[in-house]
Amino acid sequence: MRGVVMHGPGDVRVQDRENPRIIEPTDAIIKVAAACVCGSDLWPYRGVDEFHDQPMGHEYVGVVEQIGDQVEDITIGDFVVGSFFASDNTCEICRAGYQSRCVHAELVGGTQAQRARIPLADGTLVATPGMPDADLIPSLLTASDVLGTGWFAAVAAEAGPGKTVAVVGDGAVGLLGVLAARQLGAERIVIFSRHADRQKLATEFGATDLIIERGDEGVAKLKELNGGLGAHSVIEAVGTQESMMQAIRATRPGGHVGYVGVSHDVRLPGEELFFSGVHLHGGPAPVRRFLPELIRLIWDREINPGRVFDLELPLEEAAQGYKAMDERRAIKTLLRP
Amino acid sequence: MRGVVMHGPGDVRVQDRENPRIIEPTDAIIKVAAACVCGSDLWPYRGVDEFHDQPMGHEYVGVVEQIGDQVEDITIGDFVVGSFFASDNTCEICRAGYQSRCVHAELVGGTQAQRARIPLADGTLVATPGMPDADLIPSLLTASDVLGTGWFAAVAAEAGPGKTVAVVGDGAVGLLGVLAARQLGAERIVIFSRHADRQKLATEFGATDLIIERGDEGVAKLKELNGGLGAHSVIEAVGTQESMMQAIRATRPGGHVGYVGVSHDVRLPGEELFFSGVHLHGGPAPVRRFLPELIRLIWDREINPGRVFDLELPLEEAAQGYKAMDERRAIKTLLRP
Repeated sequence: MRGVVMHGPGDVRVQDRENPRIIEPTDAIIKVAAACVCGSDLWPYRGVDEFHDQPMGHEYVGVVEQIGDQVEDITIGDFVVGSFFASDNTCEICRAGYQSRCVHAELVGGTQAQRARIPLADGTLVATPGMPDADLIPSLLTASDVLGTGWFAAVAAEAGPGKTVAVVGDGAVGLLGVLAARQLGAERIVIFSRHADRQKLATEFGATDLIIERGDEGVAKLKELNGGLGAHSVIEAVGTQESMMQAIRATRPGGHVGYVGVSHDVRLPGEELFFSGVHLHGGPAPVRRFLPELIRLIWDREINPGRVFDLELPLEEAAQGYKAMDERRAIKTLLRP
Repeated sequence: MRGVVMHGPGDVRVQDRENPRIIEPTDAIIKVAAACVCGSDLWPYRGVDEFHDQPMGHEYVGVVEQIGDQVEDITIGDFVVGSFFASDNTCEICRAGYQSRCVHAELVGGTQAQRARIPLADGTLVATPGMPDADLIPSLLTASDVLGTGWFAAVAAEAGPGKTVAVVGDGAVGLLGVLAARQLGAERIVIFSRHADRQKLATEFGATDLIIERGDEGVAKLKELNGGLGAHSVIEAVGTQESMMQAIRATRPGGHVGYVGVSHDVRLPGEELFFSGVHLHGGPAPVRRFLPELIRLIWDREINPGRVFDLELPLEEAAQGYKAMDERRAIKTLLRP
């Protein structure tokens, strides 16, 4: 089969890879209907993380082709959405809603390909009510990571009625954090963004205010909107020192930061954090917790998160998709195997 | 009047100080019935923080002697308990329960003395139902800081029924964190302690398990108690890099760290925090939030937090009280003006 492999920074190639096969009796093999490039794939693409000869991709939707002997709930022919972390969904940590930290958690990889092996299929995959209409596929694909992650960030930030929510990061996750905050009933949603295309999409997803300033200047602008207090809830979707400090400083005492940007070279100063009085919660999103609800919202066409894909390419042109995202010409690239 | 002044590291003297007077119309002057030495007073005593000619003390109970023109709820003759942060208790932040970060917050200082000025008296002070019996005074005094702080830590850590709570730090705050966790219904309470006197008091306050190991070794021992998962709730009551990392590592994914040790030279590594998946909340405790409930529990003799005082001295001998705590001969020193 064909699949995307990163050979080193900036060097993404589509090549022949071995077809995946059932290894554990709890595995499933899916035929990928759509995959995509994640903002986090840009870290190794830019050389910040080291990847060599690494099959890429951890977001996926598709049809189940094979199942292992112990798979009971998922059946061949199901159209499924899964998280980038495989989970048994039965352990104590899963039952508490932290499937990304399941005691048997395993990263799903290599989904930018024609087929993929999904471990712990019963715990990881959720079948849609039937075969989806073609136009629902991009939205279902977002549920696999960026929507699930933005949603978790909004939940971790305790976005809800009466709250002012601020969003640091205008990538796909930040934008879908806006959508999640709106869906969760937030009163006011402020996004920090200086890119016209992203501002437009943020507004469509429910942002009520835009701030183009960043860092402490951005925080000052935000505080002008709410009597100097800061937001109740702040979504952090970048993962740098600057974005984390901006998020913490934008939050009022007693408020909540939900941070989902994969942390890179961050050192949080204890004293400032201590006196900030904020709640901090985040990490790799337990997407599986939210999948049934997100699939329902998409199926019923209550939300249209697939709008974050502004570039769609055949799998063979994946390298172009990485390049466009790296150069910020695209928010998110969908790949059709 | 007489009061404690720190002239520099290790140099604590009781000396004549001017009587406090009403400065703002919202002030009250109290005659201090009892004050005490805080664990945080040891930071400057040990030269970690720089204090010069600084009147000391921020914990207090006493009788109101004078009030400003705008004081309405507190009356002369009331026996009162207050927080170390003065707060108006009416602003949006106070109403959300974060009085230590009130928009008009002000540190109360110099209470290791015969009298003290308390700003924002109506918002800061809570009167007891009447004049307390003498044996209740130490417990009421703990409500002013160490009990309120340990309680906040337990609430921030979401201690409650069915939960395993671990406590890092066996000073007065950690010990009262044990008491709070017990009172909040925690199922199992583990304290990290290697001091026999503190272990004994922890057990009296409700600890079910003791661990003498520290750091990663302590974390490993804790995980042996709960199937390798870590505690649901961890109270951090020290404020160092080591204690913060121990607290984070002792918490299961999705669990809660309540940290109240005043942070010193702490830099939290973003990546480890991210992948830990814990909730982090803490800071200077909004003691005022809990005062009515804590006073009631003490008044009804349901809790006896005053047991943390294992040294009682006349104010004039305050220096001995600091020394005993510094040398760990005493957990906490009560001073009688």
